[in-house]
Amino acid sequence: MTAKQMTMTKVEQDAMRAVTDHACALHAAGRAIVFTAAVVLDGQVIATARNEVSDSDDPSRHAEVVAIAQAAKAAGDRDLSGATLLASCQPCEMCLATMRWAGIGRVIFAAQQENIADTYFRFPKLKISDFHAACDRAFDFFGGVQEERVAHIYAAKGDA
Amino acid sequence: MTAKQMTMTKVEQDAMRAVTDHACALHAAGRAIVFTAAVVLDGQVIATARNEVSDSDDPSRHAEVVAIAQAAKAAGDRDLSGATLLASCQPCEMCLATMRWAGIGRVIFAAQQENIADTYFRFPKLKISDFHAACDRAFDFFGGVQEERVAHIYAAKGDA
Repeated sequence: MTAKQMTMTKVEQDAMRAVTDHACALHAAGRAIVFTAAVVLDGQVIATARNEVSDSDDPSRHAEVVAIAQAAKAAGDRDLSGATLLASCQPCEMCLATMRWAGIGRVIFAAQQENIADTYFRFPKLKISDFHAACDRAFDFFGGVQEERVAHIYAAKGDA
Repeated sequence: MTAKQMTMTKVEQDAMRAVTDHACALHAAGRAIVFTAAVVLDGQVIATARNEVSDSDDPSRHAEVVAIAQAAKAAGDRDLSGATLLASCQPCEMCLATMRWAGIGRVIFAAQQENIADTYFRFPKLKISDFHAACDRAFDFFGGVQEERVAHIYAAKGDA
């Protein structure tokens, strides 16, 4: 399935609304790092998270990584095959790889790389289509969902 | 500086010996997941770690990610500019990106991608040279150091 053909479930749509609401709320509260994520499995949201890098001083604690860790705990299994990762912003290279290690084959996100600051990626010349091809399309992705709600948050250079 | 021109410091050489010793010891003890890493900063080893994925059920807890988190804690700063990451095996895409988020611009590893199982990478068609180019060579890398000590451990498909 290609990205543009993806049909979201009602649970995914609602989860994405919650993810973007969460990002907007953090932004309105003046937080410097505003990224949010969720994991849906078997028709249920099993994890929601925000970026915890500044809380933990652990550079790996992006929202997606935290959400995946929480989801593995909730599921009692670090193999999250069949799950969907949702994120307020296109997952960086670290988060995409973490998703793949967790066996997640479906990712939906709001703000897309081409519309946000390069600072949110560490290998900015690689695009998600390059990662998609580099694993023989082992995951489906769908970007730009509810993007208009959050794109302004990530348009300028900031912390991650 | 290109990879082949890298000169290791004595501290890095000794740290790499400890990293490969650690991997060999875990392998000898029959552990299923055998990856080790360390971080050197200002002429000192400030973190040593092994893969903790099965201990934590957190798919992100690769040895390098754990070592970087520990190093940030030890340094009191999640910006580890000037540090060197050492690993028993070529860091996967997640670990490379975590390294970059931590500001680490120097990585040295033993077993190289071309000599180990594809299962240890999640985007196996991308090579470290692709990542190197995709960030305008923002890091230096040197693979194959003490590779003969550990390559057999990673030659066959296994867990990560």
